[in-house]
Amino acid sequence: MRVAYPDTIAQEFLRDFPAEVELIPVSNRMDRNVEAEVWIPDPYATRAMKTWPHLRGVRLVLSLMAGTEWIPATVGPHVTICNAQGAHNVSTAEWTVAATLAVLKQFPLFLDIQRSGDWRRRNEASDAYAAISGDKHPHHPPVMLEELTGKTVLLVGYGAIGKEIERMLAPFHVKLLRVARTRRVEPEVYAINEINSLIPRAEVIILIVPYTQETRWLIDREQIGLMRQGTLLVNAARGAVVHTEAMVAALQSGQIRAALDVTDPEPLPEGHALWSCPNVLITPHVAASSPQFARRALQIAAAELRRYMSGEPLRNVVQTATI
Amino acid sequence: MRVAYPDTIAQEFLRDFPAEVELIPVSNRMDRNVEAEVWIPDPYATRAMKTWPHLRGVRLVLSLMAGTEWIPATVGPHVTICNAQGAHNVSTAEWTVAATLAVLKQFPLFLDIQRSGDWRRRNEASDAYAAISGDKHPHHPPVMLEELTGKTVLLVGYGAIGKEIERMLAPFHVKLLRVARTRRVEPEVYAINEINSLIPRAEVIILIVPYTQETRWLIDREQIGLMRQGTLLVNAARGAVVHTEAMVAALQSGQIRAALDVTDPEPLPEGHALWSCPNVLITPHVAASSPQFARRALQIAAAELRRYMSGEPLRNVVQTATI
Repeated sequence: MRVAYPDTIAQEFLRDFPAEVELIPVSNRMDRNVEAEVWIPDPYATRAMKTWPHLRGVRLVLSLMAGTEWIPATVGPHVTICNAQGAHNVSTAEWTVAATLAVLKQFPLFLDIQRSGDWRRRNEASDAYAAISGDKHPHHPPVMLEELTGKTVLLVGYGAIGKEIERMLAPFHVKLLRVARTRRVEPEVYAINEINSLIPRAEVIILIVPYTQETRWLIDREQIGLMRQGTLLVNAARGAVVHTEAMVAALQSGQIRAALDVTDPEPLPEGHALWSCPNVLITPHVAASSPQFARRALQIAAAELRRYMSGEPLRNVVQTATI
Repeated sequence: MRVAYPDTIAQEFLRDFPAEVELIPVSNRMDRNVEAEVWIPDPYATRAMKTWPHLRGVRLVLSLMAGTEWIPATVGPHVTICNAQGAHNVSTAEWTVAATLAVLKQFPLFLDIQRSGDWRRRNEASDAYAAISGDKHPHHPPVMLEELTGKTVLLVGYGAIGKEIERMLAPFHVKLLRVARTRRVEPEVYAINEINSLIPRAEVIILIVPYTQETRWLIDREQIGLMRQGTLLVNAARGAVVHTEAMVAALQSGQIRAALDVTDPEPLPEGHALWSCPNVLITPHVAASSPQFARRALQIAAAELRRYMSGEPLRNVVQTATI
């Protein structure tokens, strides 16, 4: 069995492939044609698309990514396509918990204070806490930052990554409100069309839904209007799940705060209003990145290949070949 | 039973006190004397010390803080002193996990990128990851940030806060090396004098020991020299548990990274080298702060008062009155 893989993948990540497989490194700058029944495309679609015209006899594509939107149009309908769903779960869930905590702990403000080298500016943290939280109690000593423990968290999206996030939130004893496409019980999961009644209960709202027609602008002006003072909106899904202008207005007015790994548009252009909003932490679509990614994705691909070779049903099929 | 408490404490936090107690608000600017058997001092020692000369008949001091160093010299030996150990556990443990994740996820760098408004600078994150981690694998796609999952964490200090930290680290399946004053089993805890053999195994080192003669400069030049490339040193204990100059040198050379809530000296003066070290997140001694602190500390004080009134043994005694 001949398997073409990108020559950018280090040898050591290929250990899990069966010994009887012939692994053929291919480049995005290759000029001769290569015969291979299985193709592992480069993680970057633009590179992979340059390799495809030089491949012959491909029957199975094993993508290393979760998103495979570009592949069917490139390889056509006579090829089976599998993705590497799962390789990003841990890293994305970790980013979500990290970003949630970072905003509650006011790390962006403390980092500004650190850059200014003026310890006394820490008093700004209690003013910032009072303003965003709407907490009117005369605290003494003044409150500088918040706890995640005990907060009500609305988790919008209850797939594999959503479940990882739930697992990582467990020690914080949060009150978790789960939302998925359809209502379920044990654990209780609300249907996505119930979201408007859930938003006012939440102190933290985490978005980890796939991007579809149904989830585009799921968080629109109306939903943002329903959020209570100081709600933390965490977007680890796709930028357009949120209506950007409505979010910018709510950030600028001090109603909500946000932690965003994704934006709409993306990349976020220079000078965009979102860059300079208060109470927001933006990372440039890096949440899924991980040193463990390559190993995990290739383990998933190797396991799928073993099933293919032994005639077992494949597990992560996103397109079945038509004959 | 008359209980003097600081008038800066909001009424609503006093609900847990027994109904038969007479609660007397006192100020740090009071000029008349007040008779009270029990005193709850202001959380700020400098304020509380101004109140003390106006109190008469105090037999029991119920501190709202964990640290009570100033109290014995102020009130003398004929008064019993209890602290509110436990009120800060959750907030301090949360800060520790939040700060650990924030550095591994390179939030300080991403926040600089956010402030510059230039999305394309995200490529700097893969260079920064390669430099600090010492990871020589040719990763593709490039690695932007790290996972906590699976890392080896050396937890120096296994008291109440240390155990909270362990609980919050559990979902990340870290390999935990626990250190306390003396060796124990189930769970395995190493003795503090074994620390030099443990440091080279750790990827993250968390300090949460009390500050004593024994723990001063526990992390000295020798210990920092034993740390592997890219070790993340997290200090939630006291600044002088670490030798500041040695840490600054190791940060500047790119050997280690750090997350610090405490420094030596403190406040960290303007222009101090630590402010501008690379790969460090500094928060100005705020980790324990929490909106829940006042309620928790006063609950602990109220419970202690109930034991005192019913003649039960007190729980958080730091000084027993001599007659």
